[in-house]
This record gives sequence, C-alpha cells and structure tokens, in this order.
Amino acid sequence: MKAIFEAASRAAGLVAALSDEKRNAVLRKVADALLGASDALLAANAADLARMSPESPLYDRLKLDGKRLEGIAADMRNVASLPSPLGRTLLERTLPNGLKLRKISVPFGVIGIIYEARPNVTWDVFSLCFKSGSVCVLKGGSDAADSNAAAVALIRRVLREEGVCEDAVNLLPPGREATKALLEATGYVDLVIPRGGRALIDFVRDNAKVPCIETGAGVVNTYFDASGDLEKGRRIVTNAKTRRVSVCNALDCLIVHASRLGDLPALLSEMPQVTLYADERAYTALKGRHAKLEKATEASFGTEFMDYKMAVKTVDSLDEALAHIARYGSGHSEAIVTESLENARRFQLAVDAACVYVNAPTSFTDGAQFGLGAEIGISTQKLGARGPMGLEEITTYKWLIEGEGQTRP
Amino acid sequence: MKAIFEAASRAAGLVAALSDEKRNAVLRKVADALLGASDALLAANAADLARMSPESPLYDRLKLDGKRLEGIAADMRNVASLPSPLGRTLLERTLPNGLKLRKISVPFGVIGIIYEARPNVTWDVFSLCFKSGSVCVLKGGSDAADSNAAAVALIRRVLREEGVCEDAVNLLPPGREATKALLEATGYVDLVIPRGGRALIDFVRDNAKVPCIETGAGVVNTYFDASGDLEKGRRIVTNAKTRRVSVCNALDCLIVHASRLGDLPALLSEMPQVTLYADERAYTALKGRHAKLEKATEASFGTEFMDYKMAVKTVDSLDEALAHIARYGSGHSEAIVTESLENARRFQLAVDAACVYVNAPTSFTDGAQFGLGAEIGISTQKLGARGPMGLEEITTYKWLIEGEGQTRP
Repeated sequence: MKAIFEAASRAAGLVAALSDEKRNAVLRKVADALLGASDALLAANAADLARMSPESPLYDRLKLDGKRLEGIAADMRNVASLPSPLGRTLLERTLPNGLKLRKISVPFGVIGIIYEARPNVTWDVFSLCFKSGSVCVLKGGSDAADSNAAAVALIRRVLREEGVCEDAVNLLPPGREATKALLEATGYVDLVIPRGGRALIDFVRDNAKVPCIETGAGVVNTYFDASGDLEKGRRIVTNAKTRRVSVCNALDCLIVHASRLGDLPALLSEMPQVTLYADERAYTALKGRHAKLEKATEASFGTEFMDYKMAVKTVDSLDEALAHIARYGSGHSEAIVTESLENARRFQLAVDAACVYVNAPTSFTDGAQFGLGAEIGISTQKLGARGPMGLEEITTYKWLIEGEGQTRP
Repeated sequence: MKAIFEAASRAAGLVAALSDEKRNAVLRKVADALLGASDALLAANAADLARMSPESPLYDRLKLDGKRLEGIAADMRNVASLPSPLGRTLLERTLPNGLKLRKISVPFGVIGIIYEARPNVTWDVFSLCFKSGSVCVLKGGSDAADSNAAAVALIRRVLREEGVCEDAVNLLPPGREATKALLEATGYVDLVIPRGGRALIDFVRDNAKVPCIETGAGVVNTYFDASGDLEKGRRIVTNAKTRRVSVCNALDCLIVHASRLGDLPALLSEMPQVTLYADERAYTALKGRHAKLEKATEASFGTEFMDYKMAVKTVDSLDEALAHIARYGSGHSEAIVTESLENARRFQLAVDAACVYVNAPTSFTDGAQFGLGAEIGISTQKLGARGPMGLEEITTYKWLIEGEGQTRP
C-alpha cells in the first residue's frame, strides 16, 4: 500500500506541471478509449454483477450498459471543456516595502476518494482530479472491484500512451484495511473525500489522520411558513421529496406552521406514494386525507430516509422551526416557503447549512445545477468547501512573494 | 465538559447575529476593561510565574507586564478597526431558470483553539473569533492557567455587561483530557486550530474527529541559486535566520549551488553566532571561515531548530534543490535567491508550500505583514486556509438560493 502512496506523491508534481491543453487532450483520449473498450468494460462489470443478487438495491447502481458508458464519456468530455481552475489570481497586492504578493490557485496534490458500488464514480473522480491538476487514489467498494480495475487499467494505459505518468490514477485494493491505510497516509495524501452512507462517513471521521471533507449525509427540512403560498409550496415539497428519493438533497421532514394545518392535505396531494410520519397535530389534520399515514416517533426526525417516506412536524412560530432545523438538520440543505420577506431574511441568516433556500426546492443542491460544471461531492462541513464541490473546490492556493532583497525589521 | 460545548454551540447563533458595530464596541470595551484590571491580571500571571522556573525557555513567553497588556489592548482595538470578514458576496449568479444564487461569507460557528504557555493568545483568539462572528472554546496550557482564567472571567464580565451571551468565550480546564474532549466534540465544534509544537500537532492529528487546521510547524529552506546576488542573499539569509530564531518562519536550512561555495563564507558573514551543520562540500568551503561549524548528519535536515542553528546543503542543480525541499520541507515557507527569471518561475511552480519567495526572506510569512490585519496562525495544510490565517480565513460561507417555486426536472 505504501508503494502506491509513494508513487502517487511522486506523480503529483508531474501532473501539476501539465498544461491545461494537455490535460484536456488526455481526458478526451480516455473518453475515446472508454467507448472503444466498451465490450471489455461491460464484461468486467458483468463479473461484478454476477456476485450480486439482482434483488439488491445496489444492483442498479452497479450496472453499466452501453448508454451509461456513453454518458460517462460525455461527462468526461464536458470536464475537458471547462475552464481550468488552476492559476487563478485570488488576490494581488504590492506591500508598502515593495514586496509583490500574489495568491494563486494550485492543485491540491494527492486526493483520496472512498466510495461504494458506483463504477461511474471511478471515471468522474479521475476526470475532476486530473483536470484540477491532482493525482487521485481511489478506494472503491468490493462490489465494483472488477469494473474499477478495468477502468483504472484503461486510464493508465492511455496515460502511458500520452506520455503522462500513469500514477496520476491509483486504485487501492477493496477492504477496510486499505481505507484505513489511506486515512493514515499523512505526508502522502493531502485530502480524503468519502462518498457514501453514514457508516462510511463515521468511520472516516473516527480514523482519519489526513484532512477530510465529509460529504453527502443530508437530513433535509423544508418549512412551510404561515404566509407560504400553497401552490408554490406544493410544487416545492413535491419536487424536493419525490424527484429522486435516493439522493442526499431529498426532503426528509416537512415543518408546517400550525396556522396552515388546514392546507396540509392539499400541500401533500401530489405525493400519495409517500408514507408520512406525522406528529400529533399534523396526524389529525391528515387523517383520512392521505393514503399512507403513520404517527411520528422521535426517531422520525433527524432521519435521512432515502425512500418514499417523510416526517411532518408542526410548529407555532418561525423560531420553533429554526430550533427544529438546528437540532435535527445535518447542515446540507434547508428551505422555507414564505411570502414574508422578513421571515425569508431571518431564515437565511439563522439557518446554519451549506444551502439555504427561499421558495425553491432543495433538489437544486447539485454542482451542475449551481453552474459549477461538475461535482465531486456535497460537503456538509465548513472547513474547505461547503455544499456542492466542483473543480475550484478541489484546488488549494499558494502565496507567491517576490522581492529585491527586502528584509523584515 | 459537554456542558461547555453545548453552551458554546447555543451561543454560536447569538454571536453570529450581532452587528459588526456591536462586535467592535464590545472589543473596545474589553480592551478598556483589560487596562483597568491590569493589577488583577498581573497578579494572576504572577501566580503562574511562581510555578515556573525563571530559567525555563517558556518563562519569558508566559510573563505579562504593563507594556505587554497595553500591546494586547492595542491589538484588540486594531482588530475592532478592521473591516468585517462577514457578509461578503463571494459569488452571485442568476441561473437560466431564474433561481438567484449567492455565496456569502458567514461565521464558522464554534472554533476550538489549543495552545501553550502564551497568555496573550487568549486575548488574540477571542478578538479574532468574536470579530469574525464565531464562538471560541479555549484550551490553554496549564502553565498559564491563572492568567487564562483571569482573562476569560474578565471578557465574560464585559460580555454580560454589554448584553452579549457570555458563552461567546469558553475556557476548558488544563490537561490532555480536555484536549481530547475538544477534538471529539463532533456536532458542537466546527473547527479546531492547534497552536504549538510538533508533539501537540501530532496529538491533534491522531485524535481529532472534528475538522482541524494544522499550523506552525515550519522546516524552512532557502536556496541560493547559481545566479544568486551575493548582497541580496546575505541580507535575505541573515534576516530569515536571525531576526527571531524561535518563530516558525525562521530559516532552518540553506541550500547552496555548488558553483557558489566560494561565496558561502561571505553569504553567512553576518551570522557568526549561528552554528552551522554543513554537508561535506560546504564544510570544506567554510572551514576556518565561520566561527561555529559542525558537520551535518542526516538529522540536520528536516529539523526545525528554533535556535541559532542552521543546516547547509550543497546541490548541483535547481532540480536537486527542489528535491531536497520536497523531501525535507514542511510546506510552510521556502525561498530562492536568484537573478534568473526562469529559475524563479520554475521554483514558484514546483515548490509545494504555503509561501514561496523569490529574493525575499521567509521572515515575512505573517498575517500582519501580508496585510491580513491580524493572524490566528499559519496553516501548513491545504484544506481550508493555507499560510497566514487572518479574519477571512476563519470564516466559512453558505449558499443562499431564492426562487419563485421553480422545480428541478
């Protein structure tokens, strides 16, 4: 394992020194090679699929087909077409003593990514890291071991053909041991990003010695205010809950002002397939008016359902809604539906989350939607990036100082 | 301990909501109160000093006097006079669907600081955290226990008088147990910054579950290139090594191009008090020409001396100098003395450090010198801040999204 970290660390300087043109050309070659090798890639994927029950909820995520490979290649070409995040002048000043100071965006160096059974992530992560001048060390799930090995072998072959150090991409063996080694690779790895469920995030937090960005876990609330517009609210809540239930920006808890309980059945009328876990007052308001209704328990709040399930909480004030969000939210995405400008402002100020919405659904929390071009994850911490992370969010900076022999008194 | 973290967490929203004017007024009141209570503060400091041998190298750091208290008060007033780092619009765009997107700087929340026997840090950290809208949880060294307790009691008294939640500043008891609790306070503490020596940094890295920024440890190199100007070089090397030997930006290793070994005695002529640990070729060049000369061992390189000691390494090329820096540097500050524009550019590109100097001494690595107004530490990692951290570097951001009921397809 150490040999892989050393190779990645050595490669970092070489990858950082490539031109953006060269990086883009390599990404396009990889996209071509991927489509040219689709039979081999699908065969490797078939070997992974053969080890998994088709009944597993992970089966669909794991499965590749020609269309998905085309999507992966198109995404890679899109990344190649984005402006380089490197070499941006973030600040420039000349000090009174004549020293010239510049703060310039530069590659992170070596980025480790820990992810689960999604073979497309292998390609996405490579393209985002490579475009931003960093080397990636991939730790995929064992479910996708053959798919990942085939992908990385193909990428490394193209890198060799293009005269680029093949250690720009590295694959660790499956298993927790490799994850642990990656998390302890101080001096070799500059950043680790876990992409996965709660258990993975917790494992990373407990074991990491290298800097990490926590991503993904989203306990998402939307507050329907006393002044909320019913029609907007119905669209927003329906979109946030049902567009895709398995993503981190999906709605988990609707908070409703007590004065609007009468509108609750209409607000939720377009999601009969969603099981509601309603608190006492909301249960009473919804009884006989919603197909799937259950009583909330304490566990209903603060749960990321990832399913057609949603909690409903009744409050008597905006302050109570804010307190609920502070207690149960995960700092990912929170929304208010209101026609009160004052309440909108108070909500935006008070909610401590990466993305705070007014009259829009949390389903927009996404790097591409935000215009970042692509996304490597959604950070739920405050250090480094917060919210959707695109290319700029996986760069760092350095200070360049030029003088003529000035000294500090 | 948990009660302190809970109190800090509750206070975060209240402190974040204060106006900049209120924050500045409070800081000025604290500065006034500090000077008004100088007898009591000095008495508490005397109790700390009584427990330490005056021979200890920490004694001078620990000691307060009237002049130092005035300096602390002046620094606090200076922080109050700086522009607020909060509410800056970092990005603003309207998406094609009409959603309005803004990325705004906001307080971090709860920041933990672990530091050693410097009572002035207590005041500095409070003023920087408070000015940037965050709550601080202080974990000072046991050497300064009385000084810190007196400082925090005074600050909390002023906060109460000013109608601000006194939990804006919190002091943990001395001892490793409190440090560990702070490092594990997930959900309460948003960021921990250790300020101290290697042992503290390593302990933090090994035990932290909350996001951390490593600071301070600086193994600093300066490369005197084949084309380096002797006069500039002498000034730069002398300033970097001898201005203050106990700070993290102090020079630890001079790397010299073999073709300039003849100039080595002149280059180092203004630091006769510095013991040199010279490699074979440099030793030969310096023999009889420098008062304090010893042969380098492998341990001489990669050492942060914090003393009138410096290693000297001979190389045959810029590439060899870069390799030495990559191997032994700590990513803090690195410098080149050269008259070659090409070598200056290559050095700036290739060196992976927070601050990369051309023809200037590393002694400039400092928040105030960089025009950041103040400094809470110097980051040697790449996530979050890198290099000197001022007020902006201890803020985070959030995305504010406003719509009219748009939904995501």
